[in-house]
Amino acid sequence: MSKFYRVAILGATGAVGTELLELLEHRNFPIADLKLLASERSAGRTLKFKGENLLVEPVSDRAFENVDLVLASAGGSTSKTWTAVATQKGAVVIDNSSAFRMNPEVPLVVPEVNPLAAANHQGIIANPNCTTILMTVAVWPLHKVKPVQRIVVSTYQSASGAGAKAMAEVKTQTNAILQGQPPVAEVLPYPLAFNLFPHNSPLNDLGYCEEEMKMVNETRKIFGTQKIRITATCVRVPVLRAHSEAINLEFESPFSSDEARKILNHSPGVKLVENWENNHFPMPIEATGKDEVLVGRIRQDISHPCGLELWLCGDQIRKGAALNAVQIAELLVEKNLLKVNKAYVSS
Amino acid sequence: MSKFYRVAILGATGAVGTELLELLEHRNFPIADLKLLASERSAGRTLKFKGENLLVEPVSDRAFENVDLVLASAGGSTSKTWTAVATQKGAVVIDNSSAFRMNPEVPLVVPEVNPLAAANHQGIIANPNCTTILMTVAVWPLHKVKPVQRIVVSTYQSASGAGAKAMAEVKTQTNAILQGQPPVAEVLPYPLAFNLFPHNSPLNDLGYCEEEMKMVNETRKIFGTQKIRITATCVRVPVLRAHSEAINLEFESPFSSDEARKILNHSPGVKLVENWENNHFPMPIEATGKDEVLVGRIRQDISHPCGLELWLCGDQIRKGAALNAVQIAELLVEKNLLKVNKAYVSS
Repeated sequence: MSKFYRVAILGATGAVGTELLELLEHRNFPIADLKLLASERSAGRTLKFKGENLLVEPVSDRAFENVDLVLASAGGSTSKTWTAVATQKGAVVIDNSSAFRMNPEVPLVVPEVNPLAAANHQGIIANPNCTTILMTVAVWPLHKVKPVQRIVVSTYQSASGAGAKAMAEVKTQTNAILQGQPPVAEVLPYPLAFNLFPHNSPLNDLGYCEEEMKMVNETRKIFGTQKIRITATCVRVPVLRAHSEAINLEFESPFSSDEARKILNHSPGVKLVENWENNHFPMPIEATGKDEVLVGRIRQDISHPCGLELWLCGDQIRKGAALNAVQIAELLVEKNLLKVNKAYVSS
Repeated sequence: MSKFYRVAILGATGAVGTELLELLEHRNFPIADLKLLASERSAGRTLKFKGENLLVEPVSDRAFENVDLVLASAGGSTSKTWTAVATQKGAVVIDNSSAFRMNPEVPLVVPEVNPLAAANHQGIIANPNCTTILMTVAVWPLHKVKPVQRIVVSTYQSASGAGAKAMAEVKTQTNAILQGQPPVAEVLPYPLAFNLFPHNSPLNDLGYCEEEMKMVNETRKIFGTQKIRITATCVRVPVLRAHSEAINLEFESPFSSDEARKILNHSPGVKLVENWENNHFPMPIEATGKDEVLVGRIRQDISHPCGLELWLCGDQIRKGAALNAVQIAELLVEKNLLKVNKAYVSS
């Protein structure tokens, strides 16, 4: 018996939206009907799906009628508005914004880490922040064996995290500098070409930016423990679409790098990239377009008897956003957690 | 009574060499005679100094005759060879290579941190590695008040650290990518344009690269204590000439961010860049060409009761290399630690 679902992508024309479309096609998600939704401004365009040109419709109340599953990738406030509409009409929403992530009624899911959490959904499942997804995929397999006590992480985040316009702006800025012209920053707060800056999300009273607090709070929620102490420094770098992270882990007792390597070599969603002879480790250009989080430079921390150092790169748009959302959708299908219209069940 | 010195720059045509020349002019170093030395390949060029065109001479034994001070910026093995010659002929060498840094007979000096160490020189003073200089300038003022127990640092290192050719290569690679061509890596081990990679210096048995071990060992030597535990992750990023560092510090007892801020606001060589309202903190493009290490985002570490987070940017060629060397030279002059030929003493 096969089931097919009526799916809508909200924010279909964005960087994550177009990736969602591509992944649904390539992973052959069981689709009965696909709706592409976007703001008035972006509606009217067409996007290819399985050889067909699909029209992007403007988002509206009616657009969510006869939809089983919504993959939403829009800003937080837009997401809030339309998620309410979609769930009221009976759809399940997998939301990529930060709007619901810390809501205790909403599961926050990384399929490699806490797939069971999805079962408790009440219509909404939140997709974590990109930096959190990448870190949890790499750290969870170790945490399962020996609980992590503390994480000190520094990120190297690509322009894609700020959207398709930011990616284009970095290129324009770079071109300007190479031509001897000053770089113009309109989408990004400062020039990013040949430069970098601390992540510019709003700062809290302690001086941590939102992006950093996402890594702290979301990781704890996904791991199901408030005990892990986490500090983060998030930095935007002139890379196009893969994020990197330098992660320092502290355990209660020593964790050998060999053991960590063995574990990560067989962990879902992780690919070890460690060629010590050629000094070849994860790099953003090699993580781009890949499903896996590339992990390498697993080192015993020489500054702490129970410390471990990790280095990772992961495609921000793919595993950091769209792929994780599609994997959640696949999980819902697999675990029968998605209602389906009888018309779309074939025996 | 004024004293003037016969100075030679070894490696005068390199990125650091040309910066040394500029700094000697702008800081009005008391020069009686200036020799520009380079390899056979680079000799014959002329460089401007105080309006005059100076010929770059090929380095030779004879070139070090009648020289009081050598500012050496060449590779480790070249430095070793010529430092032996220069010191034998009576000159004091301030060496920018890693050749002598960990030699217990050679002082390793950051003038803002351990100026007194210079007094013990026996003809050679080592200039620390760029990342070490920047970190020690920012951390020392705090360490003086309350000893640092542990440092976890992640670096964001510019192309300039790999030399002038690497800087040019990043631009060429970037141009190629913008034109839709593949980037070519000849000087750098991998494409750096729109990419980044772990520092490619040789790895030790524990998986730490040389650059990281320089931060560990040199910092301990400069601070005069083996007690500080340090771990580092060094990363090359597509920035042209300023390095950035995310530094996590652990003290024995709590160190408030306000106190740290007050101290760093009056520390030599440090400039606080902390505009919390506008989310404006140190950036490589604003550190480029500056003497000071820009420090900001001083935060209480939420993951450790005695932790503190810092973010800094500093010009790798300037304070990270040439400026520190010239400051050491100025220190030698000021403390009368440099022999001078009687002919060049004016009353």
